[in-house]
Amino acid sequence: MSGDGRTGALELGGMAGSVPLGGAHSPLSTRIIGASDMARMVEIVGRDQFMDLMIDALRDRFERFDPDNVQVRSRDGFRYDKPDLGLIEWMPTHEVSGPVVVKMVGYHPTNPMQRRLPSVIATSAMWDTTSGHLVTLGDATLLTSVRTGAASAIATDLLARSGPVRLGVVGLGAQAVTQIHAISRVRPIERIIALDVDEEVAATLQERIAFIGVDVEVVDSGRAATITSEVDVLCTCTSVDIGAGPVLGEAPPRPWLHVNAVGADFPGKVELPLSLLRTALVVPDIREQCRLEGECQQIPEESIGPELWELMRAPASAHAAGRVTVFDSTGWAVEDDAALRLAHDLATRFDLGTDMILESISRDPYNPYSPPIGL
Amino acid sequence: MSGDGRTGALELGGMAGSVPLGGAHSPLSTRIIGASDMARMVEIVGRDQFMDLMIDALRDRFERFDPDNVQVRSRDGFRYDKPDLGLIEWMPTHEVSGPVVVKMVGYHPTNPMQRRLPSVIATSAMWDTTSGHLVTLGDATLLTSVRTGAASAIATDLLARSGPVRLGVVGLGAQAVTQIHAISRVRPIERIIALDVDEEVAATLQERIAFIGVDVEVVDSGRAATITSEVDVLCTCTSVDIGAGPVLGEAPPRPWLHVNAVGADFPGKVELPLSLLRTALVVPDIREQCRLEGECQQIPEESIGPELWELMRAPASAHAAGRVTVFDSTGWAVEDDAALRLAHDLATRFDLGTDMILESISRDPYNPYSPPIGL
Repeated sequence: MSGDGRTGALELGGMAGSVPLGGAHSPLSTRIIGASDMARMVEIVGRDQFMDLMIDALRDRFERFDPDNVQVRSRDGFRYDKPDLGLIEWMPTHEVSGPVVVKMVGYHPTNPMQRRLPSVIATSAMWDTTSGHLVTLGDATLLTSVRTGAASAIATDLLARSGPVRLGVVGLGAQAVTQIHAISRVRPIERIIALDVDEEVAATLQERIAFIGVDVEVVDSGRAATITSEVDVLCTCTSVDIGAGPVLGEAPPRPWLHVNAVGADFPGKVELPLSLLRTALVVPDIREQCRLEGECQQIPEESIGPELWELMRAPASAHAAGRVTVFDSTGWAVEDDAALRLAHDLATRFDLGTDMILESISRDPYNPYSPPIGL
Repeated sequence: MSGDGRTGALELGGMAGSVPLGGAHSPLSTRIIGASDMARMVEIVGRDQFMDLMIDALRDRFERFDPDNVQVRSRDGFRYDKPDLGLIEWMPTHEVSGPVVVKMVGYHPTNPMQRRLPSVIATSAMWDTTSGHLVTLGDATLLTSVRTGAASAIATDLLARSGPVRLGVVGLGAQAVTQIHAISRVRPIERIIALDVDEEVAATLQERIAFIGVDVEVVDSGRAATITSEVDVLCTCTSVDIGAGPVLGEAPPRPWLHVNAVGADFPGKVELPLSLLRTALVVPDIREQCRLEGECQQIPEESIGPELWELMRAPASAHAAGRVTVFDSTGWAVEDDAALRLAHDLATRFDLGTDMILESISRDPYNPYSPPIGL
């Protein structure tokens, strides 16, 4: 990692690749990591350090990713327009001889305006595959924001020009905060040009990212027409509607421009203009999902570059000098797996979370009515 | 319901069809219904009454089931043979304008012998589709056993001869207990003929079902060859291996024989002989899944009868006098939805469960790092 202001890495023994079944809890209890545990975890570790740990955890997972040893199911779920527009999806993954991790994620775009709730609310859970016991259940709302930032940081570190960068951000909701934070951990940020169709949301960005210590220039949303020519790194994190994209204009991009296309992952939703994608190296997080929901919907399969984890194997050959690059980030279950394992290990280390006997494990395995173990 | 010894129904106001978001807990807390809560719930209500409530809940759900208003995803999951043979699956369902309910279920057949754990361990969770908030998470291990019994009771009540019955049970593990219990709620049981390939398991059945007050005749497992000719109702709940079935012989069945084929749901696993299925009215719980995993694997699609919920619409036309009937029970997500709603409503009524702020709902929905609500 080449970010500024970074403190030394917190060492977490045995985290990578291990099946985290240890800790102080009983082998049949479930550790619940709730909102207060997550907040305390970030407070103890420090916000910057927590982001760094997430970047390291994802980078480690990507580097050792072996498609023959990991099963990932396509994200699937229920989409509905009653009582309001929304979806609830599941993102399951299983590492051979390791745990099963499933993130359940809801996306309800009217939440912030109508209910003062985040649009994304999520939980993740991890099962021991020896017995089928639920080991951990945790909030994944904060984790999803942080891991989405961390994935952009990894792509940016690999693909953007080195040295200080001008950062553009289009769409200034919750994701913008963790995108900017994550980028700041891998590149010094000279300045930020930020815009949103909602002026009230735009007006609060500076305060929300005050802890990062970079000045934000909030510009009129019309500036989206030319922003590709003004910045070195660009994050799009909008919730643009089906058929309403792209959110950017077709101004000639700056050489070396790197774009993290984060928002609006849904069939028919796109953020980037086709002209940009046509000349760019397009790196999906996971090809199949990006073709269904991401920017890769717009281009033929043969124009799609390597997945991010593949690119990490051969970073030198990443792209021709000055070529525009796009990270098509739709969110990968393997990232959520890594994020939950990090949270589980930190919870164990700092004694956070509540251990409960959740499952009715009857004392006589042949009698469901016999008293449960733990009572 | 026509069972003997049954007490009057406990009334649960507003249960059927309602979205149970009420109760004493905060609108953003998650109610966790753990093992001790489930045990206490059954203790308060009474074991028989709890089974009756489950039968009523499923019957009500089946009666008002409308495929146009309920989305059910095919059961999917990860199957593995390392570290040991097992699977973890998800069973999602969504009622239009109602909640999303997902059961996560593990099946690890070596659990009882090697770990003194039940082979099936499960949890169920329910999401509010207005915001995506996780409303309830509960043990579904006990619920799965009880709802599987309840489904057999409904099929038996609809299809078996009326009056006292002789009950056969093949496979005497955990499922046998709730199968026998459930059947006893809809038919007086004259006697039970029971067998298992494992004599040690068979030897404990009488004690495990002592609360039902019916004598068990445990017979040699060879008796499976002729048991269809000896009983009026038969429950098969084995974990027979792939390719090792059927577990029954081809003796001519008694007229009106009704079979609940409950166990061994997996591609290649079958419990019943084809000769029995060929002459029987075969009623699947859910056709598509039964064709993949149930007894319906053995017969052409046009030989499969109505699904159980369909049959309930026209019980008079159920079957010709004396014809053998088979309920092919593979386990339906809609049953698990009904079971969790019942548990949620009882937990609310009796103030059981633990309310936790699980999800990090930040006070500012545009800032994931702002303090979570509830802290």
